Amino acid sequence: MRRALHLAALGQGRTSPNPMVGAVVLDAGGTLVGEGFHARAGAPHAEVGALRQAGERARGGTLVVSLEPCCHHGRTPPCTEEVIDAGIVRVVVAMTDPDPRVAGAGLSRLRAAGLEVIEGVATDEAWWLNRAFVHRVRTGRPLGILKWAMSLDGRTALPNGKSQWISGPAAREWVHRLRARCDAVIVGGGTVRADDPLLTSRGRRDPEPLRVVLSRGLDLPEQARLWDPAAAPTLVAHGPEAPAAARERLDALGVERLELTACEPHQLLEALARRGFNRVLWECGPVLAAGALSQGCVQDVAAVIAPKLLGGVPARTPLGDLGLVDLANAPFGRTLRLEPCGSDWIGQLNLQPGG
Amino acid sequence: MRRALHLAALGQGRTSPNPMVGAVVLDAGGTLVGEGFHARAGAPHAEVGALRQAGERARGGTLVVSLEPCCHHGRTPPCTEEVIDAGIVRVVVAMTDPDPRVAGAGLSRLRAAGLEVIEGVATDEAWWLNRAFVHRVRTGRPLGILKWAMSLDGRTALPNGKSQWISGPAAREWVHRLRARCDAVIVGGGTVRADDPLLTSRGRRDPEPLRVVLSRGLDLPEQARLWDPAAAPTLVAHGPEAPAAARERLDALGVERLELTACEPHQLLEALARRGFNRVLWECGPVLAAGALSQGCVQDVAAVIAPKLLGGVPARTPLGDLGLVDLANAPFGRTLRLEPCGSDWIGQLNLQPGG
Repeated sequence: MRRALHLAALGQGRTSPNPMVGAVVLDAGGTLVGEGFHARAGAPHAEVGALRQAGERARGGTLVVSLEPCCHHGRTPPCTEEVIDAGIVRVVVAMTDPDPRVAGAGLSRLRAAGLEVIEGVATDEAWWLNRAFVHRVRTGRPLGILKWAMSLDGRTALPNGKSQWISGPAAREWVHRLRARCDAVIVGGGTVRADDPLLTSRGRRDPEPLRVVLSRGLDLPEQARLWDPAAAPTLVAHGPEAPAAARERLDALGVERLELTACEPHQLLEALARRGFNRVLWECGPVLAAGALSQGCVQDVAAVIAPKLLGGVPARTPLGDLGLVDLANAPFGRTLRLEPCGSDWIGQLNLQPGG
Repeated sequence: MRRALHLAALGQGRTSPNPMVGAVVLDAGGTLVGEGFHARAGAPHAEVGALRQAGERARGGTLVVSLEPCCHHGRTPPCTEEVIDAGIVRVVVAMTDPDPRVAGAGLSRLRAAGLEVIEGVATDEAWWLNRAFVHRVRTGRPLGILKWAMSLDGRTALPNGKSQWISGPAAREWVHRLRARCDAVIVGGGTVRADDPLLTSRGRRDPEPLRVVLSRGLDLPEQARLWDPAAAPTLVAHGPEAPAAARERLDALGVERLELTACEPHQLLEALARRGFNRVLWECGPVLAAGALSQGCVQDVAAVIAPKLLGGVPARTPLGDLGLVDLANAPFGRTLRLEPCGSDWIGQLNLQPGG
């Protein structure tokens, strides 16, 4: 199973809307004869790849797979039938598939066909690997990561607004790798106006994550690196109040637009979940960040902490008002990881013990 | 020498205005026959303790000492003469004493008396151990540590001012231990009014560090835990502008007062250096912290970072305005240490590569 989970992780950042899945096939004598992982949506499922590699040697053998095999026709035929047809006699799975179209029915189908099914092996690791997928299936929203870079005194800019660069090159590369694990990177209009960011993974993910701007008034510059489709696709989401002239200007630039029923973080995430996005990265300013947090759109926080002091009462800080009046109600996370990164530090929090 | 440095560190927090010093004596055959350390100002110097323990066995032996032996009459007679009289033939030292009354003259005296002197053994470790002492002797100010506790988003209070408790019990104990290594703990009047802090090491240092309030207007409460001399001594420093009535009120409370020529951090530190203080801890609010930093009164920063998010534009942050307009000029530190502490993290920076 450890090998199956390792294989599954090879698909990281490219399988949405699907989960990451890895599988190995052992022959009747226990020798490893096939390996597979789900490389991207539309590509063969992990089980199928492993079974094809095993060929006839799978007959009488064991399939070890990190997620319950599917039993429905999606972009690919049901894996359960392929497993049965291959002559597998025992299936070991780490966790059931939370997708309501599967949800235990895959394992039932295998048992009904006379196969031995062993559940619950390395469930925690498998669940953690696919917690973004599980989160989307359960909540109808992608898992949200809120990232910022700040000085040790909690500033994300100088009082005059300057913010490039607070963190060092190693931390900026770390952010590129973080983006590569996400399906979309979200900013507000203010960040576009102030920073003209590129927001790509610098080629670490193919395709690049979707760059998303959530902008109430569509007061966006004519020229911006986000409007260049050669770098990555961009989506501008707005509410019904966005002026017609601004909409037309964006359309003329050839930028994709999405009208939400309200210009709110949770509306945006629900729309992105409908596109099959499992994980999104918030790289926005303090007001939008506080809004996303307050609406339950943030599960993880990644703070890049630079060993600098910026000071300044009017200087920008990571988060706008959360409406807290009591420290006991402050969002509290368990430490995921705390590590040096070049001259900076990266602290990662998981705000939601359940995922 | 490693043993001598280890012995020296036993005096941590209690030797000011003196440095921490440790010494071992080896007999002519190389056997350890005496150990000593400087336990507190006025107590015997490390060399003397070690020599007394060795007694006649020191004759023909070696003294290993972390700092150059003194050659002047202070509260105790010159150590050089004790070393010579004990019959020591070889002295190994880690560093010379920066005190202008010594500054190499101790080693010269030993050499003139015919002893072999070996310098430069573990100099970096010895210097680091006594960098607060070296800093005071060189600059005329104690070494300053600025400490704060904040949420991961850089807040030291909620928008409504609540700040107890951002950090957890383990981090608060860590702060008590930090205080125990300092000669004084400094706050401003605002902290006294808002938090009524105790500011002691909870018995980890005997005597407790001096509690210092730097207050321009002496607008201080009649009742405060700082005014209780049973917990620890307190000094209130102010400028010439402090109203006479407020001075009299403090005097009536029996609190020690100190009038500075100006109510500024550097004036306070120079006064504390004259009292022989090597190391002070700033536990003040953002405005005084920014002032201390801007006036070169902060060499180390210790930030307790709680895995919480407080948010809020009007919420208090660690530092007031530093007058920065360019990120390249931001105070930058090399990482001293980064460690988990209970549920919190502690990040310590040294702002001054030279000490």
